[in-house]
Amino acid sequence: MYRNFAFTPVGSHQKSRSGILKTPHGNIETPAFIFCGTKASVKGISPQQLYETKTQIILSNTYHLFSYPGSEYIKERGGLHKFMGWDGPMLTDSGGFQIFSLGHGSVAEEIKGKRSGISTLINIDEEGALFKSYRDGSLQLLTPEKSVKVQRNLGADFIVAFDECTPYHSDKNYTEQSMERSHRWEKRSLEEFVRKNDFSQAIYGIVQGGVHRDLRKRSAEFVSENSFFATAIGGTLGSTKEQMYEVVETAMEGLDLSRPIHLLGIGGICDIFNGVALGIDTFDCVHPTRIARHGGALVKPQYRDHPTREHINLKRSQYASDDSPIESDCNCSTCSNFSRAYLHYLLKANELLALSSIAVHNICFMNKLMEEIRAGIIAGDLNYVRGKWC
Amino acid sequence: MYRNFAFTPVGSHQKSRSGILKTPHGNIETPAFIFCGTKASVKGISPQQLYETKTQIILSNTYHLFSYPGSEYIKERGGLHKFMGWDGPMLTDSGGFQIFSLGHGSVAEEIKGKRSGISTLINIDEEGALFKSYRDGSLQLLTPEKSVKVQRNLGADFIVAFDECTPYHSDKNYTEQSMERSHRWEKRSLEEFVRKNDFSQAIYGIVQGGVHRDLRKRSAEFVSENSFFATAIGGTLGSTKEQMYEVVETAMEGLDLSRPIHLLGIGGICDIFNGVALGIDTFDCVHPTRIARHGGALVKPQYRDHPTREHINLKRSQYASDDSPIESDCNCSTCSNFSRAYLHYLLKANELLALSSIAVHNICFMNKLMEEIRAGIIAGDLNYVRGKWC
Repeated sequence: MYRNFAFTPVGSHQKSRSGILKTPHGNIETPAFIFCGTKASVKGISPQQLYETKTQIILSNTYHLFSYPGSEYIKERGGLHKFMGWDGPMLTDSGGFQIFSLGHGSVAEEIKGKRSGISTLINIDEEGALFKSYRDGSLQLLTPEKSVKVQRNLGADFIVAFDECTPYHSDKNYTEQSMERSHRWEKRSLEEFVRKNDFSQAIYGIVQGGVHRDLRKRSAEFVSENSFFATAIGGTLGSTKEQMYEVVETAMEGLDLSRPIHLLGIGGICDIFNGVALGIDTFDCVHPTRIARHGGALVKPQYRDHPTREHINLKRSQYASDDSPIESDCNCSTCSNFSRAYLHYLLKANELLALSSIAVHNICFMNKLMEEIRAGIIAGDLNYVRGKWC
Repeated sequence: MYRNFAFTPVGSHQKSRSGILKTPHGNIETPAFIFCGTKASVKGISPQQLYETKTQIILSNTYHLFSYPGSEYIKERGGLHKFMGWDGPMLTDSGGFQIFSLGHGSVAEEIKGKRSGISTLINIDEEGALFKSYRDGSLQLLTPEKSVKVQRNLGADFIVAFDECTPYHSDKNYTEQSMERSHRWEKRSLEEFVRKNDFSQAIYGIVQGGVHRDLRKRSAEFVSENSFFATAIGGTLGSTKEQMYEVVETAMEGLDLSRPIHLLGIGGICDIFNGVALGIDTFDCVHPTRIARHGGALVKPQYRDHPTREHINLKRSQYASDDSPIESDCNCSTCSNFSRAYLHYLLKANELLALSSIAVHNICFMNKLMEEIRAGIIAGDLNYVRGKWC
């Protein structure tokens, strides 16, 4: 069923593990970070720059591409890989997260285009989710079958089953009912996937259940009992770091550990170390590329200007006369060519080059972090590595 | 006086010529195109991308850098080359053009930053030009001595004498008086240059005189009689292509042809062929990089969609389903990875990547055009080359 895909362990340390995730577009060494190319483009970054920064895998958002330019259009262009000029592994999500988070305003933040009319979720029922397009106000129905068809048209290596993403403030009763419906949606997603499986894609099931231990366990068992290629942990992970750790740990308990496990939407450095410690294989988050657009550059602890902040804000006036690169020991093209002072100046002068240059550094930074984590796992000194970072 | 600079002819064809322009930051093969990095950055393009597109030389605008972040600041950062991370040849202009064109609204177009308060020219007298900064409204006086000092702080290889740039609608009387003052300003610029010449820079004199043959001739003679390293032809070149040709031709007559000759602000393909035919060695213009930001991609005649337009507008709906690259025979990174359809989509989706990708193509395009022109001159078949283009 997944003949062109495989997940092969290469090393482990306590619950942490390193492996090779094989796809039709190349292998991914795990733990790995997946960068967001929301609208079929990692904002301001060319595929060449992604290769140069040793990016292993990117994702695009089904919700955005479904709204514009449409998945049929991208299929006609030869699929997302060809369309974007990216020949490496790729993932698309199901579209659910964006639809269900519309009410909470987070998509408005993500959609930076001119037409920022806010989408509205109209109705959820057994069939699927009815919503108003953020682009043209048209009514759109997304169902499990539709989500899989759209993702098939897009043609990413990894696709994700359609689920409802419940927010933190949902009560346990709603969270449980929603989870049960998500399970039925995920089954329908899997059936649609199997119906036309051409072995070019592999599908992730999603664990829901909010912050409730018993629900997370049931959801993990559901996903493991069904023949998904891999597992993603979704939904709310709570309101504190401790709760996140606990929710992820609970979710992991019922999982089939022979499958790769993805933690959705997490990208903080210490959060990644926590996830890896629990056995997570892949992470994704807009964080590294989004903060870049606001002048935020990720730095190792010795380069920080605040003990708990994992990045420095290059817009701050203290960097106006700082002639050192973002990180003195970084060999990315930004650190090789530009000082913090120059990047500060570019940000102040509203020069486009600031955004892509800082993003290049942040992408390179995350890829080197994951490399260090992999090496730590294989050498059995992950706790030492973690101690340097968190 | 210019011991680290030289201009050596390598071939000629009728009045056209090809040569090597030696600078402390490397050699430039001429005819060459100078790309605009107005505010110490070629918008959205990294130095690495400039090298990859075989860019020989860029310029920055003294007026903008004088206003922000200030030339003393850039000097403290080690000069423009180090600040920008560009290690190739560079030119700065005198600042005059922007000050004197303020009244005509063209700078508003050039300054894309948020603080777009319009600068105002307050007064011109023998001493210099008094104006209000576009950035903070402060009063600033730019004199020949100040312009040279500022350009010395910036540290570009080539600097330009301070002049007044008279617009097309000035009458002959004003144009003549202005030209005479510009000559006095240029002399003062040269004296200031000589006073502290450390052999790291070379200075251009500028030919003014508007559209008047006799004035252009006098101005050309003035520049040739003074020990500038090179000559730039500035001011209005008339309202038609024919007039431009005539004005440039007249200006060339009185010039010392052993010096390199630059034509200011000209970047159209056929205009460049006309300039080369008259013996021009270098050109500069915002055109290739500016049109890129509006979706304009330069193309060879066989790829055009309109007989007299030298670029295609990728925003046009006809490109939405065009799976070919901007130019099928172009090997730039944009044409190697992206279709017109993808670039069209990126423009419509307001994705940053569109701007830098099209700019990369246009820069590469211009550099290949100039290479073809040089080869044509050396092989003696420039007219054949020109026939393919214009």
